[in-house]
Amino acid sequence: MAKEIVNREENYSLWYNNLVTKANLAENSAVRGCMVIKPYGYAIWEKMQAQLDAMFKETGHENAYFPLFIPKSFLSKEAEHVEGFAKECAVVTHHRLMSNPEGPGVVVDPSAKLEEELIVRPTSETIIWNTYKNWIKSYRDLPLLINQWANVVRWEMRTRLFLRTAEFLWQEGHTAHATKEEAIEEREKMVHVYEQFAREYMALPVIVGRKTESERFAGAVDTLCIEALMQDGKALQAGTSHFLGQNFAKAFDVQFANKEGGLEYVWATSWGVSTRLMGALIMAHSDNNGLVLPPKLAPIHVVMVPIYKTEEESQKVLAIMDQIKIKLKKLGISSKIDDRDNLRSGFKFAEWELKGVPVRIAMGPRDLAKGTVELARRDNLTKEFREREGVEEYIVTLLDEIQENIYNKALEFREKSTVEVDDFETFKDKIEEGGFLLCHWDGTAETEQKIKEETKATIRCIPMDGTTAQEGTCVYSGKPSKQRVFFARAY
Amino acid sequence: MAKEIVNREENYSLWYNNLVTKANLAENSAVRGCMVIKPYGYAIWEKMQAQLDAMFKETGHENAYFPLFIPKSFLSKEAEHVEGFAKECAVVTHHRLMSNPEGPGVVVDPSAKLEEELIVRPTSETIIWNTYKNWIKSYRDLPLLINQWANVVRWEMRTRLFLRTAEFLWQEGHTAHATKEEAIEEREKMVHVYEQFAREYMALPVIVGRKTESERFAGAVDTLCIEALMQDGKALQAGTSHFLGQNFAKAFDVQFANKEGGLEYVWATSWGVSTRLMGALIMAHSDNNGLVLPPKLAPIHVVMVPIYKTEEESQKVLAIMDQIKIKLKKLGISSKIDDRDNLRSGFKFAEWELKGVPVRIAMGPRDLAKGTVELARRDNLTKEFREREGVEEYIVTLLDEIQENIYNKALEFREKSTVEVDDFETFKDKIEEGGFLLCHWDGTAETEQKIKEETKATIRCIPMDGTTAQEGTCVYSGKPSKQRVFFARAY
Repeated sequence: MAKEIVNREENYSLWYNNLVTKANLAENSAVRGCMVIKPYGYAIWEKMQAQLDAMFKETGHENAYFPLFIPKSFLSKEAEHVEGFAKECAVVTHHRLMSNPEGPGVVVDPSAKLEEELIVRPTSETIIWNTYKNWIKSYRDLPLLINQWANVVRWEMRTRLFLRTAEFLWQEGHTAHATKEEAIEEREKMVHVYEQFAREYMALPVIVGRKTESERFAGAVDTLCIEALMQDGKALQAGTSHFLGQNFAKAFDVQFANKEGGLEYVWATSWGVSTRLMGALIMAHSDNNGLVLPPKLAPIHVVMVPIYKTEEESQKVLAIMDQIKIKLKKLGISSKIDDRDNLRSGFKFAEWELKGVPVRIAMGPRDLAKGTVELARRDNLTKEFREREGVEEYIVTLLDEIQENIYNKALEFREKSTVEVDDFETFKDKIEEGGFLLCHWDGTAETEQKIKEETKATIRCIPMDGTTAQEGTCVYSGKPSKQRVFFARAY
Repeated sequence: MAKEIVNREENYSLWYNNLVTKANLAENSAVRGCMVIKPYGYAIWEKMQAQLDAMFKETGHENAYFPLFIPKSFLSKEAEHVEGFAKECAVVTHHRLMSNPEGPGVVVDPSAKLEEELIVRPTSETIIWNTYKNWIKSYRDLPLLINQWANVVRWEMRTRLFLRTAEFLWQEGHTAHATKEEAIEEREKMVHVYEQFAREYMALPVIVGRKTESERFAGAVDTLCIEALMQDGKALQAGTSHFLGQNFAKAFDVQFANKEGGLEYVWATSWGVSTRLMGALIMAHSDNNGLVLPPKLAPIHVVMVPIYKTEEESQKVLAIMDQIKIKLKKLGISSKIDDRDNLRSGFKFAEWELKGVPVRIAMGPRDLAKGTVELARRDNLTKEFREREGVEEYIVTLLDEIQENIYNKALEFREKSTVEVDDFETFKDKIEEGGFLLCHWDGTAETEQKIKEETKATIRCIPMDGTTAQEGTCVYSGKPSKQRVFFARAY
C-alpha cells in the first residue's frame, strides 16, 4: 500500500517521521524548522489543550494573552535568561517592505528600521513581568495565577517534527506570589497536574523530579520536570515547572506592599508544556502498523468499515452503521463510517490502523444475517465477534480497557527498561541498550559533565518522592551519595 | 470611586478607552501597537472562540496550524496581495543576538543574517496555498475546508485597543474547491455564519453585503462583509469573507485532476473575524456606567453582593448565596459571590456594573427575614425584589430576556440611525450626525472616492438581499443607479 511505514526496529527515526507524515499529523513547511500541523494532528492537540485548560482552571488559573514581540532590552534584564535565549531567536528589525528598485519582487525598506529590535518570544517571562509591575501593588493583588496559550520561536538548528521545531505551540503559566513557600507549592502543584495529565490522558507514565543545575531553565532557581521513556530507550522531557525565586521580580522591579505596609519583591513560577507532547504520544505507543492513540485523546474513537459486494448489501450495512453511530454519539463516543466506494476494505483497515483509531467495526452480509459485528482493537490488534445488540455499551467499557492497557504496556516497558547500575563499566554497556539507569551521583556538575561526554547520557531528573533515597557511592567518582538519580540519553 | 469613566457624550473615544482599561479587558503593552489581553477580556474572547469554533465545525471545517513566518518571496507571488500587505509588516532579518562588544546588553549578531527575510504573517493565504499545492492532486481531495486560530501582525501606525492593533488574534478560514460555484457558495455560507454569530451571541444586528472594489481584500475577486453600527454613529466592519477566484491557485500553481482527468486550477475562499469583535461588542452596548455584556458572552452571569453589618449576618447571607450558586451552576449559569470584606457594597455594585455582569443579586438581613432577594439588571439598570424560592429558574428566563433586550436596543438604534438620502447637500448634513445613509450610487470608483474626500464617508457595503433594489439617481453624480448602498463614516 501507498502509506507503508518503515519498521521501528530497522530505523526508529525514519519510523517516527513516517508516522507523523503518513498519518497526516504534521509536515515540514517551506519555512526552515517550522511545521504545518495538519487537521488530524491538530485535532489531537485540541483534545490535549481542552483537557489541560480545564485542569488549569480547576486549579484557579485564568488565561490571558501577551505580545508576540519582546523588546531586545527586556531580554537582557535577567542575566541568565538572556544567556539562555539570545543565541537562538528570530529578530524583527524592520516594519516595511518596498518594491525592489533593481528588479522584480519586494525588498526590505531601509527607512523602516526599528529603533529597537523586537524578538519573537522564545518564552514570555520578560514581557509578562514587565506587565506585572503595573498589576501588582499590594498583597491583595496576589497570588496572580495566569496562563497563556501561544506560539513561540526558538531558532533551533536541528529540528524534528513536534520534538524540536523553530516555532511551536505551547502554554506557559506565569504566577506571582507573596511568599516563597506559596510559589514553591504552586510549582509542585503544576508539575503534578502535568504528571496526572500524562498518566490519565496520554496513557504515559512519567517520572517527576528535579533538574540538575546544568539542565535548569535559564533564569530559574529550580526546575521540576516530567520525564517519559520512549520505545527506543531514549528519555523525553515532556513538561517543566520552574521556581523563579525573585529573579524576574528584581529584574523588572516588581514589589508589593505586604500586610504590614512594607515593600517586598514578588515570588514567581512558570510552567509549560508544548506540541512536543505530540511527539511523546506518538513515540511512546505506536507500532509498525502506525499510531496507537489512547482513546481519551483520539479524535475518532470508532471507525466502521462496511464489507459488501452489491449496492444492496452496501445500503443495508450502512443503514445499521448509521444506527450504531447515533447510539455511540449519545454515549459520548465519536465514530466515522468509511463509506468511500473507491477503496478496498483491506486498504481502509490499514489506513485506520495507521491513524491509530482505537476500535474498528467491520460488518458484511454474513454479519447482518447472524446479527453480529467484527470488532478489532488497535492496541493489541485482536479481533472478536460480538452481538450487534448492545455493542455500543460494550465499546464504552472496551475503550476504558484499551486506555488502561496502553498505559500498562508503557509502564511495563519503562519498568523493564529501568535498571540500577553501580559501576561505570556497566553504565557504559547498559546505556547502549537504552532505558533509565538509576545511579548514585556525587552531586557535582563536573561528574555530570564527564558522564555526558563519555556516554552522551544526562541526568534526566532527581526524584523527589524519596523512593530512591539510599546511601551509596557515585557511579563515576566513587564519592558518597544519598540518593539515586535517573540517567538516560534523551531527545 | 477610583474606576470612574468619562461620559460617552462628552468624549466617546476616551469613554471607550476607559471602558477597556478600567473593566480590565486589555491594555497597551510595552511593545508599540501590541496589546495585553487581560483575563477578563480574554474570558470573553474564549467564549466567542468556543462558539465560532463550534459553528465552523458544524459546517464541516477542521482546524490546522500553519507557520507564523512567510518567506518574503511568497508575498510577491500574488500581485495585489503584496501591494496590500508589504507596507505594514514585521520583517525578521536575523536569527541570533550576541553580547554587545561595545557595552552592556545584547546586539544583533551580523553573522546571523537570514538568506531570505521572513515576514510575520499579516494573513496566511500565501503560506497556505503553497502548502495546498502538495495536498491537492485530485478532485477527491476537494473541497478542503480548513480554519486556523492564530495571531497575525500588521504594522498599523495608529492603533486602538481591540479595534486596530499591530498584533491581533483571529481565525482565518481557507478553503479550496473544484468549482467556482461551490467556492462562491462557501463564501456566502460563512458570512452568514458570522451574521448569525453576531446576532445570536453578540446581540449585534449587522448588515451583510458586498464591498466595493476599493475596499476589497488584497488578492480577492470579491469581498463580503458584516457591518455593525456603533453608538457614536460610526460603522465597524466586523468580519469578511472573500471569494479569491483562482488567484492564489495560479500564483502557487495549485491544480487538480478533475473527474475527466483534465487539470484545472482550484477555486478558493478565505474568511476571518478577529479580536476586533471585542471592540464591536464593547462599543455597541455599553453605557456611562460601563460594559453591558450580552449574557451569552458574559464570563460571569450573576454576581451576588452580601449586605451586612455584623459577622453573624454576613455568615447567614453567604450561606444562602452558596446555595443559590450551586443551583445556578446546575442550570448552566455562572455566578460569583463578592465576599471581599474590605469594600463597601456601593463600591462593589459600581465595579460589577463597570464589568457588565448581566444580573446582580443583593441580599441583607431584611431580605433574609422576608425570604426575598434584590435583583438588578445591568442592561436597563432596573431593580426588583423576588422571592428567594425559585429565583434561580427566574434568572434563566431573565438572562434570555436581557439577551433579547440588548439586541432589540441595538437594532432600534440602527434603524433609527439609518436614513435614505437623495441629494448631496442633505448627505453632507446627515453624515455629521452619524449613522448609515442609504443612497443611490452610480457604481464608479471615482464617485466613491470623491464622496470620501468630501465627507470622510465610505461605502460600507452593497446589500445582496435585494431589499434596497430600486431605480434611482446617484446622490453625487446624478447618474442612474439600480440599488441603494450603505454609506457611513467608519472605524
